[in-house]
Amino acid sequence: MSDAIAFLARAIEQGQGLAKADLVLKGGRIFDLVSGDLIPGDVAICNDRIVGTLGDYSGAREIDVRGKIVAPGFIDTHCHVESSLITPLEFDRCVLAHGVTTAICDPHEIGNVLGQAGLRYFLDGAMATAMDLRVQLSSCVPATDLETAGARLEVADLLALADHPKVLGLAEFMNFPGLLARDPACLAKLAAFQTRPIDGHSPLVSGYALNGYLSAGVRTDHEVTNLAEGREKLSKGMAVLIREGSVCKDLHALSSLITERNSSFIAFCTDDRNPLDIAEEGHLDFLIRTAIKLGAPPLAAYRAASISAARIFGLRDRGLVAPGWRADLVVVDDLESCAVSTVLAAGRVVDDALFASRGALPPVGRDSIKARRVSPDDFVARGQGPSTVAIGVIPGKIITERVPVTLPYRNGERDVDLDQDVVKVAVVARHGVNDNKATAFVKGFGMKRGAIASSVGHDSHNLCVVGTNAIDMAAAVNRLTQIEGGFAVADGGRIVAELPLAVAGLMSLSSFEVVRERLIPLRAAAKGLGVTLAEPFLQVAFLPLPVIPHLKITDMGLVDVDTLEFVRD
Amino acid sequence: MSDAIAFLARAIEQGQGLAKADLVLKGGRIFDLVSGDLIPGDVAICNDRIVGTLGDYSGAREIDVRGKIVAPGFIDTHCHVESSLITPLEFDRCVLAHGVTTAICDPHEIGNVLGQAGLRYFLDGAMATAMDLRVQLSSCVPATDLETAGARLEVADLLALADHPKVLGLAEFMNFPGLLARDPACLAKLAAFQTRPIDGHSPLVSGYALNGYLSAGVRTDHEVTNLAEGREKLSKGMAVLIREGSVCKDLHALSSLITERNSSFIAFCTDDRNPLDIAEEGHLDFLIRTAIKLGAPPLAAYRAASISAARIFGLRDRGLVAPGWRADLVVVDDLESCAVSTVLAAGRVVDDALFASRGALPPVGRDSIKARRVSPDDFVARGQGPSTVAIGVIPGKIITERVPVTLPYRNGERDVDLDQDVVKVAVVARHGVNDNKATAFVKGFGMKRGAIASSVGHDSHNLCVVGTNAIDMAAAVNRLTQIEGGFAVADGGRIVAELPLAVAGLMSLSSFEVVRERLIPLRAAAKGLGVTLAEPFLQVAFLPLPVIPHLKITDMGLVDVDTLEFVRD
Repeated sequence: MSDAIAFLARAIEQGQGLAKADLVLKGGRIFDLVSGDLIPGDVAICNDRIVGTLGDYSGAREIDVRGKIVAPGFIDTHCHVESSLITPLEFDRCVLAHGVTTAICDPHEIGNVLGQAGLRYFLDGAMATAMDLRVQLSSCVPATDLETAGARLEVADLLALADHPKVLGLAEFMNFPGLLARDPACLAKLAAFQTRPIDGHSPLVSGYALNGYLSAGVRTDHEVTNLAEGREKLSKGMAVLIREGSVCKDLHALSSLITERNSSFIAFCTDDRNPLDIAEEGHLDFLIRTAIKLGAPPLAAYRAASISAARIFGLRDRGLVAPGWRADLVVVDDLESCAVSTVLAAGRVVDDALFASRGALPPVGRDSIKARRVSPDDFVARGQGPSTVAIGVIPGKIITERVPVTLPYRNGERDVDLDQDVVKVAVVARHGVNDNKATAFVKGFGMKRGAIASSVGHDSHNLCVVGTNAIDMAAAVNRLTQIEGGFAVADGGRIVAELPLAVAGLMSLSSFEVVRERLIPLRAAAKGLGVTLAEPFLQVAFLPLPVIPHLKITDMGLVDVDTLEFVRD
Repeated sequence: MSDAIAFLARAIEQGQGLAKADLVLKGGRIFDLVSGDLIPGDVAICNDRIVGTLGDYSGAREIDVRGKIVAPGFIDTHCHVESSLITPLEFDRCVLAHGVTTAICDPHEIGNVLGQAGLRYFLDGAMATAMDLRVQLSSCVPATDLETAGARLEVADLLALADHPKVLGLAEFMNFPGLLARDPACLAKLAAFQTRPIDGHSPLVSGYALNGYLSAGVRTDHEVTNLAEGREKLSKGMAVLIREGSVCKDLHALSSLITERNSSFIAFCTDDRNPLDIAEEGHLDFLIRTAIKLGAPPLAAYRAASISAARIFGLRDRGLVAPGWRADLVVVDDLESCAVSTVLAAGRVVDDALFASRGALPPVGRDSIKARRVSPDDFVARGQGPSTVAIGVIPGKIITERVPVTLPYRNGERDVDLDQDVVKVAVVARHGVNDNKATAFVKGFGMKRGAIASSVGHDSHNLCVVGTNAIDMAAAVNRLTQIEGGFAVADGGRIVAELPLAVAGLMSLSSFEVVRERLIPLRAAAKGLGVTLAEPFLQVAFLPLPVIPHLKITDMGLVDVDTLEFVRD
């Protein structure tokens, strides 16, 4: 009798109450996401499977959950683990405690640095995590031809990984202009994944363009930022993955989409969320409680976090607290607070012992910052006159504005104007492919002195620096080269705070607790420069992303995303 | 450029309105099953895919649907095509016109007669139909050891077919007692299909037994007959496939389950439906309009018939009228009437030309009735006294009652009592395996003279006959042997009506129109015997099914289904 048959025999026996269950959550109430009712009764578990509900069970191990509510484990439908600044194993430790038993990640940050080796690192990581980490294969590495990435992933590279058990489908298809123009390399990737989940990324795309985009088989979007956009996309069969990350916070704008009627077409995601926010606010638990606070029906919010997400991505085994379903479970004090007390991942109680039992994941991408030493002269901003356009940052958004500005102008060089809140932004290529550098202007940081630099620079992850003066900009960038990448704050020519991210210049070698603690002085140092943004480093990191409207900067220059042309003024 | 890439390029171009679409439904309204709104706009189609909604499109071909509503094609989630008495190609012609663009069938009727060859016949048929016919592999052939079937399907037989593109998963697991008792052959089949849809069949199973059943990974049930049963099953994560067949009519009892809240966990099915009912009432269109008439919200009813069904069975490409989705479309006059005017199957207009373009499907199972000639003496009902139990038929149900009766008794033989509405029922083995015969009594037919016989006798399809006298019973049974199976009505020692079913004794060689027309005099002949049941032949056909409570008859004897023992009184 094979293992699978022996397991079924045990599950059926335990489900009937003929033998003690492996584990029982005793005395709580189940949140039944079909009826919406809270139903008293034990939850019996055999190995990784729920085998009994709505009854009394005895277990070899029993956990008292009297007074509490058992809900299905939460599913983050779209995230870049790299944006948490920690490795997959630390991400696992960090978010599983918040009830996130499944995360669907797109490793395109590390993919842009290391190519297929970066994706393999995540697939290896996914085999080791206690949570079920699923991988969407990065569709757009590099995202565009308007920047220099460290690698290029073609359809053959993706197909080589497609049969891995942790792979779901194709990750966010950011290159919507390429898709709409029927670029053959884009179409080849799309054609190869037609029967599998193809994740979308189509900020503000609507009307006939959206129809064209969806015709390629794209089914989901986490880039929805306003209600009208959400309603059109839902009506066109596109599941909306409402995002609340560290930079992009769409939940307030979209909470009224979360109705019972819509609920099976709505899910949640974090996209990019750092461990400080996870510690201070939470993860999907935070999204659920915030959605409810904003007026979403609890049934719709919990569905979005579990069964709807599972169905949207074809994960048939999870999303309900019911016999035969995967024992991914979250015990909460009450629906509104979503205060998580106990988490079960595939039937295993989430605790230190579980994490200690995992396999190792050797780091990759050490010494990946291959930029040459820069000098203040590298950040001169030449132009044809005082008038130009600055990137207008919007707090909590990665969409930017195109802001016409008139700046101090002398000897063919433009300079910052702190009175207008306009400072310099530059990108320095770091993949060893070339020595590209580009400098332009950004408005909205509130920065009064110094500079902040980051080796996290979506999506090609060149070095990005925002500063009031070229000396501090050079100091911050050069420091990143010394510490294998990360974040640095320079003031008066010296480094006042930093966080090394030695894994591909994206992730820390330290625990999530250490990263979390180091982010506090780092944020404080940025604020010390006058920066008024809540998430200065992540807002820096998104300034290069030329697939998000309207104005962005790469190592090749300032990009008008609406026309996909460089601004040469 | 491969075909798939060329197709995507065309779809994206047409979706953007940059080229004429292949086909446009002009000027109607879409029933948006996400929002519940009726939204004006054209539907543009490229090949088999919807590429445009909510806009104006031009098409190489255009169909005017002004004043009408475009809904997603309907999905019958569980049916036995054999019960329509016609071949898969005729079923296709018959139901596609009613908007049924997908049917999930379980060919276990023919499987019980011909084994794997019967399943292969359906897989070949599924490749030829214009609708998308999907096949669940029959899990329980034979359904029990309490009857003699023509074949036996073990897990290896199923696995040999599992990779066929039309196979979804494992068909209704009727042998719930075997599952609960952890019978190794049952577990082997269940273990082999754990990651695929496993259809259930668990009439009145509840509580711990239901938990045990669900622990095996079963996810759906079409045997729900009352509200409390439906509510428990839904709460335990079991999708309820509400059935309205020719015999089993559960829609009235269950219509109040069809709410917006539940709607993504509810689907429709017909199970067993004959072409006369399809002609007179309809198919899934009838279920939809009836559900609405009974108070179901139209949104919930149409969801159950399309997107919910698709999601429950993991058919990711269909169920909405939206760009990128499969162009299975139904044009109806209004939501309430569900009067179907035009149907598109994978983008092709359903008409005679489409059916004419299909491939052929040579019949199988000719001359499959291998019973020896019977005589009236074969239908003597011996017993130990006048008291026994009769099978109590319930009009429109396949569940039967166990009715204690006291009958005329002489020389150790019991006889019919027309005053009590109790007549004989017998089953004659017909697979050439043995010469088993069993005779007992049935109450509730209203029959006053003659006999009716059927080679359709679920699920092992031995010959089943109900009659007031042994002479007519023998005449009817012997006629079935002559005509390769079918239905026969005998009166006064001669045959007064018949319908040959030469394909495995289950399906006609004729068109559905011919079968429909022949069912009218057949029903009339049965009524001429005094029979009061609306569907006398199908009620006969379900008398042998020993997986349905409470009292049934097989070629091996009268079966108490609750104890799974033969009644030997």
